[in-house]
Formats: sequence, structure tokens, C-alpha cells
Amino acid sequence: MSPSSLDELIDALRGLPGVGPKSAQRMAYHLLQRDQRGAERLARALGNALAVLCHCERCNTFTETEICQRCASPQRDASLLCVVEMPADLAVIEQTHAYNGLYYVLMGRLSPLDGIGPRELKLDKLLARVADNTVQEVILATNFTNEGEATAHIVAELLAARGVKVSRLSRGVPVGGELEHTDTGTIAQALVERRPL
Amino acid sequence: MSPSSLDELIDALRGLPGVGPKSAQRMAYHLLQRDQRGAERLARALGNALAVLCHCERCNTFTETEICQRCASPQRDASLLCVVEMPADLAVIEQTHAYNGLYYVLMGRLSPLDGIGPRELKLDKLLARVADNTVQEVILATNFTNEGEATAHIVAELLAARGVKVSRLSRGVPVGGELEHTDTGTIAQALVERRPL
Repeated sequence: MSPSSLDELIDALRGLPGVGPKSAQRMAYHLLQRDQRGAERLARALGNALAVLCHCERCNTFTETEICQRCASPQRDASLLCVVEMPADLAVIEQTHAYNGLYYVLMGRLSPLDGIGPRELKLDKLLARVADNTVQEVILATNFTNEGEATAHIVAELLAARGVKVSRLSRGVPVGGELEHTDTGTIAQALVERRPL
Repeated sequence: MSPSSLDELIDALRGLPGVGPKSAQRMAYHLLQRDQRGAERLARALGNALAVLCHCERCNTFTETEICQRCASPQRDASLLCVVEMPADLAVIEQTHAYNGLYYVLMGRLSPLDGIGPRELKLDKLLARVADNTVQEVILATNFTNEGEATAHIVAELLAARGVKVSRLSRGVPVGGELEHTDTGTIAQALVERRPL
């Protein structure tokens, strides 16, 4: 007996990642009862984002222009291309101030369970990007999760077949980390991948 | 350097209850990258809900008509009025099939920390509703949390001052519950509020 426009809103909110039926209900009540301006703002922001956002032709991240500001910048080292999963990963690498090359954002990772294979990830676009001969090295910076590792593996194979130099972020004990509090898997990796001094 | 329409969407999503900056970012990426139809649907559902939903003049729940279906039904016992916090509570009571009276939905609870006092809860509307002389008994079914109890207390006082008969859902050991696995607070209440057989 609940009104259909309320049910429809709750259903639409359930489509958000990590939102179950109870949270969707709570969100709908909150928006309608306590924050109608927030609801209007969200509806407007959704419409606007859908209308103006597209993918950068070069790095594939979200942008409002054909080519994003970063890719268009002459300040960046175009010989380095760092491949990340999501814009959030790009942001974290930028925060390090340790990298001045360009990026390619996959906008996802291989995840067969979610039906995301090499085709859905549009790896062709990455291969076309690398084919411009200015890129000298591709640094794979996907996550060190199973899915991120699998993604790095496939991308590395595809690039190696085209004769591109490929590297991967190093794995090991975190900076400031104590061995006692580091998981054994990480320590095992740090042993296997030990560096000569 | 992230586009402003994306930032604005992430910001608007952060306004949802229980959504922090990381989840808001994840939701925005998901909607834009994997579920643009879901995003359109959510924007539409928000706009539609804001446009057509209002509060029932009698029970205060969300409805698309002036008086909701339940309040308009001649099948319900108009002498009983059950006061609940939210429409979700009403739905749970309906599911029991143990109640055939009418409801009043507070659309919240007293919560001084969130700035919700008796005025924000619009208790006047409840008092006006009860003043129609068909209501013989008001059953308080707010939650048994601190805020719900405080709400019940205030509402009971206001109604008692107007000579209305007020009752509260009973507290005690859940049906099917084992004493060994029931918290001591509940058992203490069940002792104090023991029923003669």
C-alpha cells in the first residue's frame, strides 16, 4: 500500500553499489522528509553529470572536454604511461608528487564474476593509445588484489606482444611498516623480490 | 583537476545518510561508468517523488493523495490509533496482521543531537488528529531505543493532559527467545513488567 513513486525511488536507490533494501528505504525517507533540497540537488547533479561528462580520448578518465587537462598539459612527461584502475587511483598517485608522466584509466578491472572481460575493459583503446610511439614505458599500477593482478598480467602480455616496455609497482613492506605487524604474504613477497643494495 | 560536474555529483551523493566520501566516489563512478540507465532512473525517480509525494492529512505518512488509502478505508477500526516513528515501522506492524486500527507516522523521533525537538516533529498535528473524538486509545509503538522511549514519554504526557487513553507496546523476552541468550536488560524489564496469569 505504499505509493508507487516512493517504491520507485527506493528501487532506484537500491541500484547504488553497497545499498541494500534497508539503506535504500532510509535514504528515501531522509531525502523526502529531511533533505528535499539535497534530493533536488542530487537529481540535478545526476542529470548534469550524464549530460556533460565523457571519457578523455587519450587517458579515458572522466572529463568535460575531449581531451582532459592533464593529457593536454605540455608539462607532463609523455614517454611514461601509468595504467590505473580508477580515477581515485590516479588521484592517489598524483598526491605522491613522485610521478610526472601521463595516465591511462581502465575504468575497472578484469572481473569475470561481474562479466567484465578484456572486451568490456576496452583494452583496445589502451593499445591504440600506446601505439603512438611517444610512450617509452608503461607502468602498471592496478591494485594488488587478485583482480588487479590478473588485469596487470593480461595488459602486460598484450603490451609485451607489441614490444612495449612494461613495469609494475613494486610490492613489499610498507614504508614505516614493522615486520612484526606485516602479513606473512607481504613479507614472503618482499623476500622473493628483494633488491640488491 | 577532476571535472566539476563529477565533483558536484560526488558531493550530492555524500548527502545521503551513511554515505562517506569513499562510497560517494564509488557510487558516482558506478553510475557513470557501469549504470547510466540507473543514473537516469534515479534522477527521474527523485524528481517524480519530490513532485507527487506529500504527507497524508490524517496519518502523516507518504502518499500521492490527500488522504492515504489506509486512512480512507472503512474496514479499519478508527477508534485505535497506533503511533510509529517511520513508514517502515508501520509496514512491520501491518505484516503481523494483529492490528486493524489506524496509524499516525511521526516521520522521525525526538533527537536533540540532530536538532529534532517536539516542534520539528510537529506533534501538534498528532494532537489535532487525536482531537476528533473517534480515537479511543493511542498505542505508542515508537522504538525501544533511548530516542524512541523519550519520544513515547513526551507524546504520552501530551495526550494524557488531554485525557486520551494511552498505551505502549509491551517489552520483554522475544517470542521463541531463550533466557540464556537474552540480554540482561531485557530480562530485568520482563521481571519488572511481569504479567499475572
